[in-house]
Amino acid sequence: MKERLILVTNDDGYNAKGLQAAIAVARRFGRVVAIAPETTQSGMSQAITMYNPLFLRKRSESEGVTIYSFSGTPVDCVKMAFDYLLREEKIDLVISGINHGSNSAINVLYSGTMGAAIEGSFYGCPSIGLSLTDHDLDADFEASVRYGTQIVERILEEEVALPCCLNVNFPVARPEEIRGIRVCRQNRGYWREEFYHHEDPHGRDYFWLTGEFINREPEAEDTDEWALAHGYVSVVPVQVDLTDYQRMEGLKTLLK
Amino acid sequence: MKERLILVTNDDGYNAKGLQAAIAVARRFGRVVAIAPETTQSGMSQAITMYNPLFLRKRSESEGVTIYSFSGTPVDCVKMAFDYLLREEKIDLVISGINHGSNSAINVLYSGTMGAAIEGSFYGCPSIGLSLTDHDLDADFEASVRYGTQIVERILEEEVALPCCLNVNFPVARPEEIRGIRVCRQNRGYWREEFYHHEDPHGRDYFWLTGEFINREPEAEDTDEWALAHGYVSVVPVQVDLTDYQRMEGLKTLLK
Repeated sequence: MKERLILVTNDDGYNAKGLQAAIAVARRFGRVVAIAPETTQSGMSQAITMYNPLFLRKRSESEGVTIYSFSGTPVDCVKMAFDYLLREEKIDLVISGINHGSNSAINVLYSGTMGAAIEGSFYGCPSIGLSLTDHDLDADFEASVRYGTQIVERILEEEVALPCCLNVNFPVARPEEIRGIRVCRQNRGYWREEFYHHEDPHGRDYFWLTGEFINREPEAEDTDEWALAHGYVSVVPVQVDLTDYQRMEGLKTLLK
Repeated sequence: MKERLILVTNDDGYNAKGLQAAIAVARRFGRVVAIAPETTQSGMSQAITMYNPLFLRKRSESEGVTIYSFSGTPVDCVKMAFDYLLREEKIDLVISGINHGSNSAINVLYSGTMGAAIEGSFYGCPSIGLSLTDHDLDADFEASVRYGTQIVERILEEEVALPCCLNVNFPVARPEEIRGIRVCRQNRGYWREEFYHHEDPHGRDYFWLTGEFINREPEAEDTDEWALAHGYVSVVPVQVDLTDYQRMEGLKTLLK
């Protein structure tokens, strides 16, 4: 049987600890090519680079693992893999992460990690975003690697229907503390921001975004936020048709 | 009756012709504050700026219209309006655009115009993204302004249920050529990219993203792509729960 090829990317950059954790997951299932952003791309969502040239650099190569940096966004990295670097090969799986920080609830929309995972699914390849609810640069990924491996194994063993995109989040816990895996829906909530406002050394006012997530349904046990708050790994299957079908008839009347 | 307050933003930048077209639509319904990116932010999706300070500059002020530039993304502009600059006021409507280029089909995910419109809807305010299928810097927005005005008027006159976010696209046509407004679903399709690959003046290889949209269902008459191709204005109601509910049961079995 031909060895599988796994594409790994992230939004924290090619030298993030979380990328190594994702590679540790991926390496159990095949050969790994990682193409990750040159710089941090947190919050970059599904952004693509339209008006700048992009630079690709091979950073390291060892048995079964090659790591490149790419000077664009996470989605650019995925496109670079499928449409250029690996276009002659069959990529069997995309893993994006492991992100330093949660991408549950509405964060799926802002997340560069999930932007890349969604993009991978457009290429007819199972794609999994992995995120740990811990922003620490030196976060402990042991439980994430263990449970991430379990999920990837199930997805690769079964012939899952495509497109397939999963938003997987891990609580901060030791492996033995995790209560299991829960398939969830995306929690309803939103961010309320405050702009930190100060003066730079040249006397110019500047603003810096800072915010707080408001969970609108903390008691709803079928959401990803609930699962994470209660010690479970959350798995949300993701689709990309944003049409609000329930509104269509009303709008047809309104805009007649 | 208190004059309405309309927030206008875009992703092409504060000095784009399309911003003036959006302001022309908005000004008929109230006072306008425009906060638009300092530089082009096409393809920036729902991206937010987490790791850089941002600068706000007032660019012009005339009767009922104030224009600011903000050095971040389209979503940053919306957050700046709701969470800082206009936080003591009630914003009645967000208009994002008019974009130079279509945001139909899957482009809703990559679009900075729609990123801003979606963000506006998170603040409990009707939000409308307007886009013209013409990338020309000097595009003709006459039909877009006429039909955009008609749609905004209907949304403001009725008490629409919130959240309310619309993805409106205009075909390239003279006003009298447009066949009407169609409420549609998001077309299924995807981009296939090619990387233009060349050498910079310093001998370094660079890549530049270029691509082609593949419409997977050109015959489906209920989609935005069909409407635009047949001379209609397309209106897709947008929601942001990406959960793929149809997959949940199968995944629960798979990951048990």
